[in-house]
Amino acid sequence: MPKTAGILLIGNEILSGKIADANAAYLCRELRGLGVEVRRISVIPDEVDLIAREVAAQSRDYDVVFTSGGVGPTHDDVTIEGVARAMAVPVVRHPTLAGLLEDWYGDRLNDAHLKMAETPEGAELVGGEPVRFPTILVRNVYVLPGVPEIFRQKFEAIRERFRDQPIHLKNVFVRIGEGTLADYLNKLLADFPSLLLGSYPEFSNPEYKVKVTLESRDRARLEDALAEFLRRLPAGALVKVA
Amino acid sequence: MPKTAGILLIGNEILSGKIADANAAYLCRELRGLGVEVRRISVIPDEVDLIAREVAAQSRDYDVVFTSGGVGPTHDDVTIEGVARAMAVPVVRHPTLAGLLEDWYGDRLNDAHLKMAETPEGAELVGGEPVRFPTILVRNVYVLPGVPEIFRQKFEAIRERFRDQPIHLKNVFVRIGEGTLADYLNKLLADFPSLLLGSYPEFSNPEYKVKVTLESRDRARLEDALAEFLRRLPAGALVKVA
Repeated sequence: MPKTAGILLIGNEILSGKIADANAAYLCRELRGLGVEVRRISVIPDEVDLIAREVAAQSRDYDVVFTSGGVGPTHDDVTIEGVARAMAVPVVRHPTLAGLLEDWYGDRLNDAHLKMAETPEGAELVGGEPVRFPTILVRNVYVLPGVPEIFRQKFEAIRERFRDQPIHLKNVFVRIGEGTLADYLNKLLADFPSLLLGSYPEFSNPEYKVKVTLESRDRARLEDALAEFLRRLPAGALVKVA
Repeated sequence: MPKTAGILLIGNEILSGKIADANAAYLCRELRGLGVEVRRISVIPDEVDLIAREVAAQSRDYDVVFTSGGVGPTHDDVTIEGVARAMAVPVVRHPTLAGLLEDWYGDRLNDAHLKMAETPEGAELVGGEPVRFPTILVRNVYVLPGVPEIFRQKFEAIRERFRDQPIHLKNVFVRIGEGTLADYLNKLLADFPSLLLGSYPEFSNPEYKVKVTLESRDRARLEDALAEFLRRLPAGALVKVA
């Protein structure tokens, strides 16, 4: 089961501020829900060398990698070439994808469309049903499209591959500031070193000053840490636990 | 004048899907408007080694780098330490920042607060007015906070440092698909190789099928490319230019 993941968004349109990312935000939520820890998101331009270098690094560093974007029929769609270069294999036409494209486009099928049948040599096709086109998998790298609607459909079709032991979360909202809170957090971490502990201040929220997040794959350990943290907090500091 | 920029978001809360990024999206738009090309966004966890490695790489590869997050008083705020390690300098207490914090917190000032007076040795403070606290600059790396409201205030205070020759943009909306369009784009790029040409399909938009973006720092060249592209498009393909 994958424990860690990397996400690679390929697209000048995000870097130039023309569109805001939706895919990484979606995928981070989904993967967390499945129990997978996302360790990196990278956004880079549609350039073969940069894609190759980043895919090679992420594929080495994480259990699974997801790319988003750069898989259409035009000149700026160079993700397949980049992934192939990362894996040191040639780009080949995949007969199954070519067949699906022929069925889909019929007489209108042209060379530009057939670019979408190209894969790095040795690629697998996964999650073909119920989506129109399956997802290309090269070693541990899943190649997904940039259009959010299709990105989600394709991920939904393969999501159960990634299910792992869940990561449990408790949110503690407090009305003391981070400066006062810091000591309490340090002491809690000293006693529960495996705990994932986050501290998120709010500067214009009348309800609370800091949201503290406690996370662990070990539910009993999390409950112990939570009980201890609540017991130690100064009187009146707690707003709520959620 | 900076021509290229990298953005580094530091924060488990984005990777775990708890919050969606607002700072990179904002900064990409602003920098593009100023004429700066963002070449990479990286999102990584609050871990000193990862921060150090990424800051070192971005600082070497781009003219300017912006970090977001990890600058508060708690255990998970390790950006300063990461930047210092990237630059191979120690972390020191900056007297100006310590003074500002003393003024701000008064009698309530504690060691946790004073952590926010720490900088990598040799750091400069920039953009002190009109924001409450200036921004830490280490070589070409600007250290900004993760809270979007403060991130923006601080960037606003230094934005004019980054103004460069503008990047001009024309959007052409067409009602032909990318498969048909690909040839036209390839030919246009062959004749205008310095043009930045993007192609963004829409699958459920009744108004158009593809948005084509033409960009250049050379306005005359952009106008020539646009005129040529429009002249070549098949009859009836154009929806609008914007």
